[in-house]
Amino acid sequence: MDKANSAYSELTALFAHIGHLGAAEKTLEWESRTMMPAGGAGTRAKVMSALSTVIGDTMAAPRTSELLDRAESEEATGLSEWETANLREMRRRWRQDTIIPTPLRAEIAARASMAQQIWQEARENNDFKSFLDPLSQLIALQREVATIKADAFGLSPYDALLDEYEPGARTAGIDPLFDDLCAFLPPLMGRIMQRQAAAPPVLELTGPFATEKQHAFSETLARKMGFDFGHGRIDPTAHPFMSGIPGDVRITTRYHEDDVLSAIMATVHETGHAMYESGLPAEWAFQPVGLPRGFGLHESQSLLFEMQAGRSGPFVSYLAPLLRAHFGGEGTAWSDENILRVYRRVRPSLIRVEADEVTYPLHVILRYRLEQKLLSGDLKPADLPEAWNAAYAAMLGIVPPNDTMGCLQDVHWSAGLFGYFPTYTLGALSAAQLFARATKDDARILPQLGRGDFKPLLEWTRTNIHSAASLYATSDEVMQRATGKPLSADAFKAHLKQRYLDE
Amino acid sequence: MDKANSAYSELTALFAHIGHLGAAEKTLEWESRTMMPAGGAGTRAKVMSALSTVIGDTMAAPRTSELLDRAESEEATGLSEWETANLREMRRRWRQDTIIPTPLRAEIAARASMAQQIWQEARENNDFKSFLDPLSQLIALQREVATIKADAFGLSPYDALLDEYEPGARTAGIDPLFDDLCAFLPPLMGRIMQRQAAAPPVLELTGPFATEKQHAFSETLARKMGFDFGHGRIDPTAHPFMSGIPGDVRITTRYHEDDVLSAIMATVHETGHAMYESGLPAEWAFQPVGLPRGFGLHESQSLLFEMQAGRSGPFVSYLAPLLRAHFGGEGTAWSDENILRVYRRVRPSLIRVEADEVTYPLHVILRYRLEQKLLSGDLKPADLPEAWNAAYAAMLGIVPPNDTMGCLQDVHWSAGLFGYFPTYTLGALSAAQLFARATKDDARILPQLGRGDFKPLLEWTRTNIHSAASLYATSDEVMQRATGKPLSADAFKAHLKQRYLDE
Repeated sequence: MDKANSAYSELTALFAHIGHLGAAEKTLEWESRTMMPAGGAGTRAKVMSALSTVIGDTMAAPRTSELLDRAESEEATGLSEWETANLREMRRRWRQDTIIPTPLRAEIAARASMAQQIWQEARENNDFKSFLDPLSQLIALQREVATIKADAFGLSPYDALLDEYEPGARTAGIDPLFDDLCAFLPPLMGRIMQRQAAAPPVLELTGPFATEKQHAFSETLARKMGFDFGHGRIDPTAHPFMSGIPGDVRITTRYHEDDVLSAIMATVHETGHAMYESGLPAEWAFQPVGLPRGFGLHESQSLLFEMQAGRSGPFVSYLAPLLRAHFGGEGTAWSDENILRVYRRVRPSLIRVEADEVTYPLHVILRYRLEQKLLSGDLKPADLPEAWNAAYAAMLGIVPPNDTMGCLQDVHWSAGLFGYFPTYTLGALSAAQLFARATKDDARILPQLGRGDFKPLLEWTRTNIHSAASLYATSDEVMQRATGKPLSADAFKAHLKQRYLDE
Repeated sequence: MDKANSAYSELTALFAHIGHLGAAEKTLEWESRTMMPAGGAGTRAKVMSALSTVIGDTMAAPRTSELLDRAESEEATGLSEWETANLREMRRRWRQDTIIPTPLRAEIAARASMAQQIWQEARENNDFKSFLDPLSQLIALQREVATIKADAFGLSPYDALLDEYEPGARTAGIDPLFDDLCAFLPPLMGRIMQRQAAAPPVLELTGPFATEKQHAFSETLARKMGFDFGHGRIDPTAHPFMSGIPGDVRITTRYHEDDVLSAIMATVHETGHAMYESGLPAEWAFQPVGLPRGFGLHESQSLLFEMQAGRSGPFVSYLAPLLRAHFGGEGTAWSDENILRVYRRVRPSLIRVEADEVTYPLHVILRYRLEQKLLSGDLKPADLPEAWNAAYAAMLGIVPPNDTMGCLQDVHWSAGLFGYFPTYTLGALSAAQLFARATKDDARILPQLGRGDFKPLLEWTRTNIHSAASLYATSDEVMQRATGKPLSADAFKAHLKQRYLDE
């Protein structure tokens, strides 16, 4: 960097400070979901609000804006490629953080916090009515946010929200992909189910499986996949998640005493997320350019591990004997073939987080379409249950018996997250496209998975995805560079046909 | 509060904000000592430094100083007793935090962090020489701090340091107490040892005792003493400690597989600390006046539980049968009488943290005297081992075989903590004086301890100590109000004579 650009240099210090405070937020968020006693929630809310205020004030300070303007006008004076990208990401982060007036931001935080409480009870009691008011308020607030951002960024309201989670993603690009999947998946599902019905029946592995034993297995497996316990932890939670800051990347897994296979894949999934975080370049730690590129790309890393590698024939043939040895399983249910059948069972279902990889995109797409209508006002919140059930009937051929298993199942909307859902399926498409390219680039990947060795795959993603962090402006650009083409549904479709129909 | 004092009102918001950020620091500090993977230390140091900078900047902002001046000049306009005390504590905290120039503060933090690493290795390798340089530097820096504070506060340099840990405490008040103990304890120790030598020998309880089993017992015991797991946790660590913020108070215990009795008393001790934190008035949470009064008074609450109540005849007669049932112990070693003898064994020893209550003050007093000489320059750091060993020989009649068991055993000096040691013994004296008064005020206390019931004792401390938080300016004032007299060694001496000599 040229010394002339002193504004940029000052900005790196300022954003590092913000990054350190952000790391405090992340660790405390992890802590509140894994360790905190329930009675600590009141204090924790105040602590999180104080941290958020400090970060917000720092970002909104006139000095920050001045420095950004100066650094951009001086940009010609010798910033490197990474520094230029860092400045772009600083501006992006600054725009996202300062565009919403503080009172509106505070109201959203307060409403979302209350709404989540109410949603939780509403879900438990199958009582959509009690959630209607908070949901309507949240939608109205998100509409305000979307309008402000749309005006400022020159985007449609929904794209303006989407852009926060997946920079550069637009409905204009997503719609054709999703339309394609909507035409392709239902008949595929039918053919797969027909084929699976003709195959030997899937046998359940009967437990109980002690959670300590599952946890020990998860740790062994994660270590084998590259998880570094010197820089991370695995803990049990109700909902698996990953939380990463530089040098300290943690995952959680949910254990069911009667189902050992799902916890294992949850671990594989979260380990994929963790590998992305731990593969980010250390020299850009705490700088905006050093962060993961987007939610869709992040999901692609978890699905690369879980769906592409983890349910591949070679890996399951490595995993199954380990499982038998660790849990003392024997008989047909514990055979390689049956375990593979369990992991590849396809059927329409009501709950997104339990769906198989063939039907999962349908769960996502219907939410994506519903949330656009909720935002635009085409769908009234009061009519959501009906619209939800109709969408399930149309796309998956089944209807939820109640709202608990229907439109109340996800936390996202109650948390004010609109524009988030499509990233799940962008991740699935990306994972397939990346895996196809990776296995073509490196013929060792598949055979090594048969030995439980993720190193060749990890090497490829380290080089092509992780080390780029946010150097490129969009996930699309990352995909283009990594696979030689823009994101499409082709690889995903080919993957499903190959895996489930041998085509 | 009169509306006229708007400066005070603004200060409460400002100090609440600081309090929330301080709670973030405390939780992250707890986290780093219990959960954090080793490789997370680098990031954590940056996070802690960022938080400390934010708090320091807020405190040092001109606005804070202006508000304090204004609030103080408007004080007549109707602040309540608590508000007046809060303003006094705000000023106190502000003076402590802003008096040291930021570069000096940063240098101390950096040096102390390095010194602790070096100390740890030096202790492991019995290599005082390698610790000499960092120790000398830390002493020089503490001397600078002491001089600055002494000038500003009109105190002697050592008192200026001491005042941070125990407001209002002065060597002029401590010296007579400690001189008294130095004359009293060694002959007492001799008489007790003679008496114990004539009694049945102390039998060790032979393990191993599984740590999970000890942990379960610790949790049961803590709950019985009033620890609220809805607002707290107990975890294992190498060094037991308590970490409290409003609504979330956590303790840790150290488990040895071959010694079940020490972990139990560590739990009782830390639960005493926890009760102080959880008994602070909720309406003053996050305000300076809502904090514990001082380190000595805090220690008095842990020793009240551990030494006064926990090793009392009634409580041990409740504890021993529980222990036998939980650990399946039988025979003479597990008898009430022998367990009481283990808990009351008196003998000179080399390690402070393992010392009995009779000899403990001698460990403290010799450190108190040595650190004063180190600060004044009367004792050169290079001569510390010799002076240390001479002090042990003179006061306890034994000489450490090496520096690991001698002057390298404690973390305090390597962490830059000078003026901290005397608070341990102030706590022991206070605990004895409080217990004497409490059991006089409420005759139920002792018999209820025989049923494992701490409620009457807790009620008394809630009323007389906890609920006062920092309402009074000094611990001495708290003691005066709670016991009707200033702190003295009388109750402690009487307690020892009564417990160990039946006098």
